Amino acid sequence: MGNFKGHALPGSFFLIVGIWWCVKFSFWHVSRRKKNACPFATKAVYRRVEIIEATVIVVFSLIGMIAEQFVPDGPHLTLFNHKEQHWDHLMNWQHTTMYLFYGIAGAVTIAVHTTAAAPVAFDRLMLSIAVFVEGFLFLYHLHGRDMLDVHVHMLLLYAIFGGALTVFLEVFLRGNILLELLRTSLCLLQGSWFWQIGFVLYPPSGAPQWDLQDHNNMMFITMCYCWHYAFSLLLVAGIYTITSWVLHSKLKRIPQMEMGLLKRDHERESDDDM
Amino acid sequence: MGNFKGHALPGSFFLIVGIWWCVKFSFWHVSRRKKNACPFATKAVYRRVEIIEATVIVVFSLIGMIAEQFVPDGPHLTLFNHKEQHWDHLMNWQHTTMYLFYGIAGAVTIAVHTTAAAPVAFDRLMLSIAVFVEGFLFLYHLHGRDMLDVHVHMLLLYAIFGGALTVFLEVFLRGNILLELLRTSLCLLQGSWFWQIGFVLYPPSGAPQWDLQDHNNMMFITMCYCWHYAFSLLLVAGIYTITSWVLHSKLKRIPQMEMGLLKRDHERESDDDM
Amino acid sequence: MGNFKGHALPGSFFLIVGIWWCVKFSFWHVSRRKKNACPFATKAVYRRVEIIEATVIVVFSLIGMIAEQFVPDGPHLTLFNHKEQHWDHLMNWQHTTMYLFYGIAGAVTIAVHTTAAAPVAFDRLMLSIAVFVEGFLFLYHLHGRDMLDVHVHMLLLYAIFGGALTVFLEVFLRGNILLELLRTSLCLLQGSWFWQIGFVLYPPSGAPQWDLQDHNNMMFITMCYCWHYAFSLLLVAGIYTITSWVLHSKLKRIPQMEMGLLKRDHERESDDDM
Amino acid sequence: MGNFKGHALPGSFFLIVGIWWCVKFSFWHVSRRKKNACPFATKAVYRRVEIIEATVIVVFSLIGMIAEQFVPDGPHLTLFNHKEQHWDHLMNWQHTTMYLFYGIAGAVTIAVHTTAAAPVAFDRLMLSIAVFVEGFLFLYHLHGRDMLDVHVHMLLLYAIFGGALTVFLEVFLRGNILLELLRTSLCLLQGSWFWQIGFVLYPPSGAPQWDLQDHNNMMFITMCYCWHYAFSLLLVAGIYTITSWVLHSKLKRIPQMEMGLLKRDHERESDDDM
Repeated sequence: MGNFKGHALPGSFFLIVGIWWCVKFSFWHVSRRKKNACPFATKAVYRRVEIIEATVIVVFSLIGMIAEQFVPDGPHLTLFNHKEQHWDHLMNWQHTTMYLFYGIAGAVTIAVHTTAAAPVAFDRLMLSIAVFVEGFLFLYHLHGRDMLDVHVHMLLLYAIFGGALTVFLEVFLRGNILLELLRTSLCLLQGSWFWQIGFVLYPPSGAPQWDLQDHNNMMFITMCYCWHYAFSLLLVAGIYTITSWVLHSKLKRIPQMEMGLLKRDHERESDDDM
Repeated sequence: MGNFKGHALPGSFFLIVGIWWCVKFSFWHVSRRKKNACPFATKAVYRRVEIIEATVIVVFSLIGMIAEQFVPDGPHLTLFNHKEQHWDHLMNWQHTTMYLFYGIAGAVTIAVHTTAAAPVAFDRLMLSIAVFVEGFLFLYHLHGRDMLDVHVHMLLLYAIFGGALTVFLEVFLRGNILLELLRTSLCLLQGSWFWQIGFVLYPPSGAPQWDLQDHNNMMFITMCYCWHYAFSLLLVAGIYTITSWVLHSKLKRIPQMEMGLLKRDHERESDDDM
Repeated sequence: MGNFKGHALPGSFFLIVGIWWCVKFSFWHVSRRKKNACPFATKAVYRRVEIIEATVIVVFSLIGMIAEQFVPDGPHLTLFNHKEQHWDHLMNWQHTTMYLFYGIAGAVTIAVHTTAAAPVAFDRLMLSIAVFVEGFLFLYHLHGRDMLDVHVHMLLLYAIFGGALTVFLEVFLRGNILLELLRTSLCLLQGSWFWQIGFVLYPPSGAPQWDLQDHNNMMFITMCYCWHYAFSLLLVAGIYTITSWVLHSKLKRIPQMEMGLLKRDHERESDDDM
Repeated sequence: MGNFKGHALPGSFFLIVGIWWCVKFSFWHVSRRKKNACPFATKAVYRRVEIIEATVIVVFSLIGMIAEQFVPDGPHLTLFNHKEQHWDHLMNWQHTTMYLFYGIAGAVTIAVHTTAAAPVAFDRLMLSIAVFVEGFLFLYHLHGRDMLDVHVHMLLLYAIFGGALTVFLEVFLRGNILLELLRTSLCLLQGSWFWQIGFVLYPPSGAPQWDLQDHNNMMFITMCYCWHYAFSLLLVAGIYTITSWVLHSKLKRIPQMEMGLLKRDHERESDDDM
């Protein structure tokens, strides 16, 4: 992963997931608030969407795991290099492990939505664990690097652990649109920050190198991180507004006053109650 | 910000906001506990007050951002000084970023109270994020300073992060007078502590300089911080008592016993239910 | 406070408070579970007990503050020693500050129970803040001491901050007997640990001095801390059992089965609903 | 405990407990969701199972305490070696203390389930404290060891403190199957990790020694920890599925649709309400 592409790829992935979640949660929340209005926003449809999403995650995890193992300079399932007496391609193995947990989370999500075997909240619990494990493995990635290198990865970890915590809260407050959009914004932040890390550590040819020991760079990058989050928040707000507006314009008038009164109840409604 | 005025200004600002919040929350809580009694404490009025407050915040944020950029020795929107190869006026840019997030929080508050587009709790979530970002930027401000300088700013951070956490809890426990007054007291603490920092780091002419490496000074300043908080708590208690007393004397007798019984229900009432 | 008596005194105080709380909470919880059975366990009595307890706390705080200031070698309200250019009797001032916050907590408790001015939960919030401030001031007490000295005080801080957190949870889960007894056990732990600190740092004459740099001592003292907590838990269990038994034997038979069914509801009952 | 057996023994113990919990919680949760279906899943049976489990814990704790004290090279209740002026067999005393707290937790569990003296939630609170104390004593075990040695024990502590926190949440969310299985998975993780520590620190004869200062080993071991957790999660999922399948196949058809509707209510049901 020690190159620009290795950071841009997961960055793009998280950006796409973030945008998708933002559309999904906005759509459900708005359509849930006016029952009968949107004929296809039923519980069955919701369930099917969740299953498709989880299937995509499982497929991508499998592809990721296979790719990490069998790229030309990958470990090819060899864990220990006996000739040189050291661990073989630890990086690839770590990424494989990260994919493994996302794969488990996807599989559990499919299981709880296709069968009635277990509480649906298990999907959030497993997602929370998968995100946590991603952060946990990153945490022990950083030993002995330069100050700025460590710092940009620490900032990434804030987004990751913040996301894990938010998803964990969703276990108990399922269908809370605030937590869902908070999680989405942290996912987008993670995505765009991966790109930023790529630009900082592997500047495109022609651009000057960053001084990785300069404290001013560290202060600038912290501020930059906040800008990324502001951008992420505006993106979420924009997508929510557009989704909301499209649904309203299609669904015509619903008495404004009634909605205000119903507002609080709806917020507490879980996804299941559509 | 490296002077006395640069600390006194935000200090005064937070003190004024704290006092305003204290009056507002006390007034709503007391008038909510006796329905019908206060004819103008209606939901519509409450909403209008929130919108006005948010508008003021947005305006002040804009003024702050423009001022930070275009003061004579400001960056004038230049981020990088190419001649000397370093970041230009990082401090001003950091303050601009802080204002930006408060501005976003204000804009979201206006949006959720004027339209029925999104849950009202978004105003608290965004305020929580804005306060958190303020603390986050301060946290990476402190590298390589003197011990006492770092310490007084760390104490400031306790007030800021405590405030962010309290507002975050308000997302889920909206209208809880305890959290609202706790937030208020932390805001007042932040305000008066800014003044104290000004006095410690830039003592008025004639006064002796503080020894920034002396451990006794550190212990004294910690104690001093507690006194500021005691003062802040007394101020909150005083304002609450006066507000309460004024409303009572104007509204005449309401059976004391009934109030005791109703007490607990009312505490759980959200602002919306007035 | 740098002597044995200075640790034994607060230790005894916290032990007495812990035992009193244990009796009070056990009594209320047991009598609450069988309404009508205990004629004098009414809301009015409960309120009166709270007010008396708070009054005692206020009086003790005032005595403590005056004593700290006006003992022969106290600061006599002088904060700065101008002759020698250093802070005067910082220790005494810190203890005064601690008493001040307990005094405020007591005063607020009296206010919310005698008037209907504010939610009763304010008493817990202020108590939580008072305990937190006690720990906060201790935290910056420890600079530059010996390893074991720091360690025994850190262990004390776990009990203090644990107590502050428990009381803070009580703000939202008022009357929860589990939190109340947990708080009690941490208070007793704090009390007996103060005694232990006295014995470690100022061994009675004749006893050998402790080697304050020995890591084995540190490991032993950690284990010893756990024993103190085991003792504290057994004390709480004993007092609860005796209280429970006394009330039962006085109140005669109440159908055992019914109690089991009512159990859960009662646990959620707040103190006010007696 | 400084040998392979000393790590394999507790490891096996936690693995067995984890598997037992997994079966127990899965069984209760599944049978609770179809009332009348499983005739022997009554409240009385549940209570008896809890009492038997707690009795086993108390007996094992007593055996453990006696064994730690009276093994040939144990302390035989001697705490201080006066001849050589140092603490005697601190390790054994620490383990005795750990067993003591598990014993107390077991005794409290028996007490709250056999009598109606106290809220049943006390069993979870005491278990949480017992697990916390285990972690707390381990934490101060680690001074001055090699990097990898410290690291593998720190990883163990994550599982322990994670478990303590989960059980503490169960105090307030009793009977929540998600928390129960999360606790179970952390218990299994702890068990299998004890075995891993044994293999790392005391490799079986013939195997090469680990370089305890190599950073690559540290990164590998962190990843290995995640694999253990993946294994633990799969084990929990497997046991839950088998239990669920066995109960279903024995109990025949129950309308699938109805179950979906009842799902959410059941999740919130406490164990008591079976």
